[in-house]
Amino acid sequence: VWDNSVIAVIALNPALDVTHHVDGVDWAGVNRPAGVRAAPGGKGLNVARTLHALGADVLLLGLTGGSTGAAVESALRATGVPTAFTPIAAETRRTFAVVDTRAGEVAVFNEPGPPVTAGEYDRFLAAYADALRTCATVVLSGSLPGLPADTYARLVELASAHGVTAVLDTSGEALLHGTSAGPAIVKPNLAELASAVGRELEWNGPAGRAAVTAAAAHLRERGAQAVVVSLSADGLLAVTAQGAWHAASRPVQGNPTGAGDAVVAGLAHGLTLGRDWPDRLRHAAALGSAAAAAPAAGEFEPREYAQALADMQVVELEQAR
Amino acid sequence: VWDNSVIAVIALNPALDVTHHVDGVDWAGVNRPAGVRAAPGGKGLNVARTLHALGADVLLLGLTGGSTGAAVESALRATGVPTAFTPIAAETRRTFAVVDTRAGEVAVFNEPGPPVTAGEYDRFLAAYADALRTCATVVLSGSLPGLPADTYARLVELASAHGVTAVLDTSGEALLHGTSAGPAIVKPNLAELASAVGRELEWNGPAGRAAVTAAAAHLRERGAQAVVVSLSADGLLAVTAQGAWHAASRPVQGNPTGAGDAVVAGLAHGLTLGRDWPDRLRHAAALGSAAAAAPAAGEFEPREYAQALADMQVVELEQAR
Repeated sequence: VWDNSVIAVIALNPALDVTHHVDGVDWAGVNRPAGVRAAPGGKGLNVARTLHALGADVLLLGLTGGSTGAAVESALRATGVPTAFTPIAAETRRTFAVVDTRAGEVAVFNEPGPPVTAGEYDRFLAAYADALRTCATVVLSGSLPGLPADTYARLVELASAHGVTAVLDTSGEALLHGTSAGPAIVKPNLAELASAVGRELEWNGPAGRAAVTAAAAHLRERGAQAVVVSLSADGLLAVTAQGAWHAASRPVQGNPTGAGDAVVAGLAHGLTLGRDWPDRLRHAAALGSAAAAAPAAGEFEPREYAQALADMQVVELEQAR
Repeated sequence: VWDNSVIAVIALNPALDVTHHVDGVDWAGVNRPAGVRAAPGGKGLNVARTLHALGADVLLLGLTGGSTGAAVESALRATGVPTAFTPIAAETRRTFAVVDTRAGEVAVFNEPGPPVTAGEYDRFLAAYADALRTCATVVLSGSLPGLPADTYARLVELASAHGVTAVLDTSGEALLHGTSAGPAIVKPNLAELASAVGRELEWNGPAGRAAVTAAAAHLRERGAQAVVVSLSADGLLAVTAQGAWHAASRPVQGNPTGAGDAVVAGLAHGLTLGRDWPDRLRHAAALGSAAAAAPAAGEFEPREYAQALADMQVVELEQAR
């Protein structure tokens, strides 16, 4: 059963991402956007699309509802990502971004996630249990809709019970609870790590780097088998049972959200392929770099990925052993 | 055939109106709206909902497409308004309003209407011809999607050929073309009338009022049988073959878009019931007043309507005879 390499990606709170491009926004009047884009969004969907583009065998599960959920599913069908969503009665959320092309500013409006009934969640759990019987790795990614903060913790425990490794990318209470359930990897960014350990962190100077590394080690003590911290332009830090590494290349500009999701996809892919930590981290960092350079989340240019792989430096950190 | 009193409302460019309430918007950052509302929108839909609430026999026709169109239709079903939409391949547009509850400002983003293929428009025309065989009045309301500017003119001509009276509420080129086709009533607001006659207008002082009345008379010379100008807090002006009247009461505050649509509903209803012009105008103005006081477009409180009817003063204007 375990010789296959399906990666199940769980998106409990997907979104329809609507983006308006306006040349000079009137924040107290009527605007006619020159460009309108609606795309399936949410971190889990970006992870699944990146894995699909890598040629990985991926299955996307989660919750969708209403006409917004139908729009998400219909747009996903066009990408070719296999899905097995559980329907809910409430409407899947929208995110709305207004890009002021004149001011160079972006305003984002994130709707709250929908409520989920006990019956709906039970039906999702049945689909999740089915996926656990046939997958090697599960990725739990993004915020939770109207569900308890320990939801990811329980899903990590279920994965463990099936011998499936879990990668967790979330924040706040859901990250703290999920970490204690012992996932193979948690992937906070610097702000999420700082919030989890309750102190300010900056990847700057020997003391700053030591503090970040110590904070990641603290999340390992709380249960995570490995912690990968995404540092935006400063690359990735991995603190694991086998050692600690930092992966970086030339500074990365662009879309940090999409980049973090590509990193998660790279980590899950490397786990499934049995890559060792330095190689896994190199690929994940290169994918993040390529995704940051792409215009839309969930996308990357293979040529950018190859170039970033060639440029990437992975350095072992002796002090964190 | 003509003893029935069905009012057909044509909404070629309906919308899904999404409203976010935010307490202090960060226009260059991430916002989490406290309140989210999605409702079927577009002027025609407001007119149809108001007529339905008045107990009129209404049928709503138009074009809807994609998941946004499905959301509009599904929300309309909940209101009980009978619909016969023609499907199109492109997505029905959204409008997006950000209400900054702290600043007391509203930013509106109106997506462009969808393209309409020749085959899709032909199928709509067949549904329109069916409706013309069984209705007394047709209301043509709102902007056009990707269709020629003379679309309303041709729909008014088709109505005339079936002996059906037409009420037109639109703006710009579509208003100018439509006016020349001889509809029973056109209903511009002051800005739309000013744009149609190419000069600035203000309902202020004897000279200002005479200029507005002359501009309305000019639209009659261009083909409209009657012109009703909505003057926001200053009520309604009607210039007709039977005379000219001004209807006003205490100043009206609130939602001017919904108010204009309620005025159109009142005019069409009065036409169908055979009310004379002063009575028709009184009811239309009172409906506009009640709609302006309601929290959402397309809605009004019957008690507000009754109170506004009692308060409304209709004055005949001798100079415009």
